Amino acid sequence: MKRLLYFALFILILVSTTMTPQTLNLLPVPEKITLGEGNFVLTHSFDISIKGNPDKRIYPYATRVLRRLSGRTGLFFPQDFLTEKSIEDTADCIISVEQPGKVLLNEDESYSLQVFSNKILLKSKTDLGAMRGMETLLQLLQNDDSAYFLPVVSIDDKPRFPWRGLMIDACRHFMPVEVIKRNLDAMAAVKLNVFHWHLSEDQGFRVECKTFPKLHQLGSDGMFYTHAQIKEILAYAEDRGIRVIPEFDIPGHSTSWFVGYPELASAPGPYTIERRWGVFDPTFNPTIEETYKFFDAFFKEMCELFPDEYMHIGGDENNGKQWNQNEKIQAFMKENGIKSNHDLQTLFNKRISAILTKYGKKMIGWDEILQPELPKNIVIQSWRGTEALAKAAQQGYMGILSNGYYIDLIQPTDYHYLNDPVPADSKLSDDEKKFVLGGEATMWAEFVVPENVDSRIWPRTAAIAERFWSPQNVRDVDDMYRRLDRVNFQLEELGITNTKNQEMMLRRLTNNGDCTALNILVDVIEPVKIYTRHNYGVKYYSYSPYTRVVDAAVPDAPEARKFRKLVDEFLNGKKELKNKITAQLTLWRNNHEKLAKTINLSPIIKEIEPLSLNLKLLSEAGLETLSLLDKKQKPKEDWIKATDKLLLEAKKSYGQTELMIVSAVEKLVNEVKK
Amino acid sequence: MKRLLYFALFILILVSTTMTPQTLNLLPVPEKITLGEGNFVLTHSFDISIKGNPDKRIYPYATRVLRRLSGRTGLFFPQDFLTEKSIEDTADCIISVEQPGKVLLNEDESYSLQVFSNKILLKSKTDLGAMRGMETLLQLLQNDDSAYFLPVVSIDDKPRFPWRGLMIDACRHFMPVEVIKRNLDAMAAVKLNVFHWHLSEDQGFRVECKTFPKLHQLGSDGMFYTHAQIKEILAYAEDRGIRVIPEFDIPGHSTSWFVGYPELASAPGPYTIERRWGVFDPTFNPTIEETYKFFDAFFKEMCELFPDEYMHIGGDENNGKQWNQNEKIQAFMKENGIKSNHDLQTLFNKRISAILTKYGKKMIGWDEILQPELPKNIVIQSWRGTEALAKAAQQGYMGILSNGYYIDLIQPTDYHYLNDPVPADSKLSDDEKKFVLGGEATMWAEFVVPENVDSRIWPRTAAIAERFWSPQNVRDVDDMYRRLDRVNFQLEELGITNTKNQEMMLRRLTNNGDCTALNILVDVIEPVKIYTRHNYGVKYYSYSPYTRVVDAAVPDAPEARKFRKLVDEFLNGKKELKNKITAQLTLWRNNHEKLAKTINLSPIIKEIEPLSLNLKLLSEAGLETLSLLDKKQKPKEDWIKATDKLLLEAKKSYGQTELMIVSAVEKLVNEVKK
Repeated sequence: MKRLLYFALFILILVSTTMTPQTLNLLPVPEKITLGEGNFVLTHSFDISIKGNPDKRIYPYATRVLRRLSGRTGLFFPQDFLTEKSIEDTADCIISVEQPGKVLLNEDESYSLQVFSNKILLKSKTDLGAMRGMETLLQLLQNDDSAYFLPVVSIDDKPRFPWRGLMIDACRHFMPVEVIKRNLDAMAAVKLNVFHWHLSEDQGFRVECKTFPKLHQLGSDGMFYTHAQIKEILAYAEDRGIRVIPEFDIPGHSTSWFVGYPELASAPGPYTIERRWGVFDPTFNPTIEETYKFFDAFFKEMCELFPDEYMHIGGDENNGKQWNQNEKIQAFMKENGIKSNHDLQTLFNKRISAILTKYGKKMIGWDEILQPELPKNIVIQSWRGTEALAKAAQQGYMGILSNGYYIDLIQPTDYHYLNDPVPADSKLSDDEKKFVLGGEATMWAEFVVPENVDSRIWPRTAAIAERFWSPQNVRDVDDMYRRLDRVNFQLEELGITNTKNQEMMLRRLTNNGDCTALNILVDVIEPVKIYTRHNYGVKYYSYSPYTRVVDAAVPDAPEARKFRKLVDEFLNGKKELKNKITAQLTLWRNNHEKLAKTINLSPIIKEIEPLSLNLKLLSEAGLETLSLLDKKQKPKEDWIKATDKLLLEAKKSYGQTELMIVSAVEKLVNEVKK
Repeated sequence: MKRLLYFALFILILVSTTMTPQTLNLLPVPEKITLGEGNFVLTHSFDISIKGNPDKRIYPYATRVLRRLSGRTGLFFPQDFLTEKSIEDTADCIISVEQPGKVLLNEDESYSLQVFSNKILLKSKTDLGAMRGMETLLQLLQNDDSAYFLPVVSIDDKPRFPWRGLMIDACRHFMPVEVIKRNLDAMAAVKLNVFHWHLSEDQGFRVECKTFPKLHQLGSDGMFYTHAQIKEILAYAEDRGIRVIPEFDIPGHSTSWFVGYPELASAPGPYTIERRWGVFDPTFNPTIEETYKFFDAFFKEMCELFPDEYMHIGGDENNGKQWNQNEKIQAFMKENGIKSNHDLQTLFNKRISAILTKYGKKMIGWDEILQPELPKNIVIQSWRGTEALAKAAQQGYMGILSNGYYIDLIQPTDYHYLNDPVPADSKLSDDEKKFVLGGEATMWAEFVVPENVDSRIWPRTAAIAERFWSPQNVRDVDDMYRRLDRVNFQLEELGITNTKNQEMMLRRLTNNGDCTALNILVDVIEPVKIYTRHNYGVKYYSYSPYTRVVDAAVPDAPEARKFRKLVDEFLNGKKELKNKITAQLTLWRNNHEKLAKTINLSPIIKEIEPLSLNLKLLSEAGLETLSLLDKKQKPKEDWIKATDKLLLEAKKSYGQTELMIVSAVEKLVNEVKK
């Protein structure tokens, strides 16, 4: 009876406040949800069967789903490993698949999921759809005080875009196999289906190359993926219905190639692996046949190794300096009537495109490769924006959007979330819109290392994944944040380290001391945005320490975001929030004294002491403001001056991190100044 | 000036209380330390050079050391990657190595480390010694409020035993490559030098076998190491100066082999992979030639794959049932005058030994293989104990001790720490003692999975490592615990997950709720000991969930240990500790109400609710006892009865976990009863 009552209460809560029935805790939100009444209760006898004609990768996938359910609930299920023989009609959960899916662009990923009070039915055309549906099933799991259950629900779902990607730069900092694997698992959990693997850069060539072994031997500091490891990752991705697009960035961004093969560069060597960050001069020489002989043999090997139809050739940020300074190249251009470096790169791209075509691949590259003479089967990845993308579409070129999804720039989740590859006001025709295949979040790796890379990717990329999968009109930011917290927690079960490694980094920063005070500060600070981290007199190299407070701090600091919202709501009339704001400000005000003690034990965190002091002073100013508002008093001139000065000071960054609650305190202060 | 003062104070503290100069924070304690005056201060210009004739693996090792120092301190060192060219005399730290080390038994691992106020000199015969010395150097790092430094010190060090191992069972639960790698790093940090890799069991055959592919294809549920992965791990271990001993456990413990090759078993098949825990019947048939043909080809492949001189053949726990029941085997025994299963196994071992000899290997196995007809170059790994080991030594057989180092049995650190392969009262002669090569901690994997395996290995194995490395008379348990806390923290930098994954598991157990109350309970409970986890009506399989409170709880619960010590000291006369005890008991008493709320939100933790209640009641009883002691009152009869009953109840386990402070409260109660 207690349970029944609780249920009734639960349903009430569900409908009234904490959960919107249209989204539950699902992220990405499915295309169509119909919530029924009652629940499917998970018991010790829960089991799964798989029918139809799936690819056999579905059995380990479903086994992992079973383990995840068991792990969360502590229920001892009777089933060990799902196999071709797991086809009993009596199973609690029956998965039916029509045909094996192909892990290729445009494969069917739709599914329908019906949860009844005594049965779960998951149907899909391909096993890729079934995988997407199983992740939805896992997100449906809820509990009360005595049981685990899924709500009775009927879901019909399919993706809005066929190309939903995450790019990881494994070059500027190398990312070992396990980093890639856990991120593939997390991608599958939020229905992403393209892993774009950035494999060569000025700072490192990261693939074993059997044809030209000096590439990895001299260009990687010993940090590269062997063929065996690449095959391992390819299989791992395929088992999760994820395509893998390798990128070899040419003709620029290529210093590391020339350490072993300087004769292919546009200026004489010798070259050493680049240790700095930026755009550098070394560029392939597009005017000598040796270059194309090299790439013919190189891409022959790589096109065999990587199975996807697409090969990414980068093509971005060639600064042209080496070309300008090379007399032979200049002579070649004159001879052949090539008027600009842009045209010279076009010639290069055409030759590379022909090589890729020969080996059965289509080309993908950044905006710069869009040139009228290239075949229509190429894909443009746009770092420039939706307009560039629309223009390409109008010319009949397929494209994906990355502008607005640069997750290395430490921008807030909602910024990325509301960024749309085909915005509602797009002027493209319906036919043209089809050329926009989707988008990719890009994890450039100047400032991330294996220890903290997950904290830049997750949870923000889950919100981006929803943009790529869910209907265009799913844009409720508050509801997204609510679900994002949940997904962020669930990703831990797949090995994602953003939460636990932040805790670890704080322990290290305090020399294993009490982290409470530092934690309170870190919850409201963020690394400085865009590319400004280079602007504070600290010169970073690839081998610099990435273990400071700025590296432990995360984008879109959750406590700061919540506080800003609190203040907005308070100023919009929710006066009852005053106590909450007061409590928060009091906590922050009192934090400085505690943190000062920690700082005395740990020189590495000294650089953020001014932020802690500013947080204290801001909190004091905020408390004073509330008190003035309460008493309906106007502040004195002196107070206003001092507070304005404080606000200015508090906007400064220290240790390349900044306080993210200044704007909220400023709003309070402005209110009292009115 | 402030700094100088602080230094003076620091030295005082160092000498007087927190640090014993003989051990500093070093673990294992070196053979000889002489502490000087002053410090070597680490600055932004710190660099390392390497001289002499080392193996080239030392360059990446030293580079990692540089990164670890940089990561801890946030200092931006100018050096990128150490190479053969890093030989400047001006470097702050100069490493000199006479010759490349061989990663084999009995290689020289000695080193001397001299820290001056302006220079660090590390000298060793082999690069293995230099690696051990670099780990000592890292452990010397300290800091005050403004700088990082190493104390001026002179260290001469070498290991007591040449065989210092950790066994990981990768069969009962599969342990992916990254689990092995991070544990190899941790082993190197505490100077362990043998990784014993348990690779076949009833529950799984974990190695790709090219000669007999059905072994891994049918015997592993897809969870096995490829040759490429094995080579990757072998290289990783070799780069850290760690030997790798593979174990293929035969003739028993072999169900998984027979799934693909039932004809080699002593009873007809078919066989399926074992999912239960225990000792099982399936055993190789030692009476047919097919068995030896099979092993000849099998070991040919494996002896080529694994480079160490030793091959471990297990040999334990053959229950003999299949032999007894097989008429042909019985007939064979009669024919050949073989009187017992033990003798039959001797015949088997002799044949296997001959095969291994043919492929250039020496044999190692558990106690059971010790039979007089086997060659004297074999090594006995004793799960039976020091006496068995001593007996073997007296017969001229080399041995290593594992009895007392079974870290799966959840025993406290000091139990393992004080267990000595050659105890002080050993009756062996000095010559005989040399036959005892060292020991191995053994991580059997019934109850560990990749998520929590580190928490069973670490930090306890660090204490075992000290037993194997440091002089026999290093036995100060309190000092060991002090240093162990430090090492445990430092192991995180190498990826060890025991601390962070416990936090993660608690988050999952509370369904991402507030973990504070659960954490307080978990800090004083432990899984039940030895093999009793099987005794509570919960039937475990390999695929059961290992995500419950019992799996998050750790051996030698630190808060419980500290409390027991506190009570002992209090009862021994340190009356001033009363307040501390009172504060602790009050915290525990008040914890239950908070935890009860969490339990209401998370069915998976309901099973430990009685422990929380008992902790509350025990704490109340403890507080009452203190009050009685204070007032010098005798307790009433009723109170004594009720308290005795409570103590009895509180000793019970729930959810296969138990409260570890009962004995301490009992001591308090006994005191007041006096």
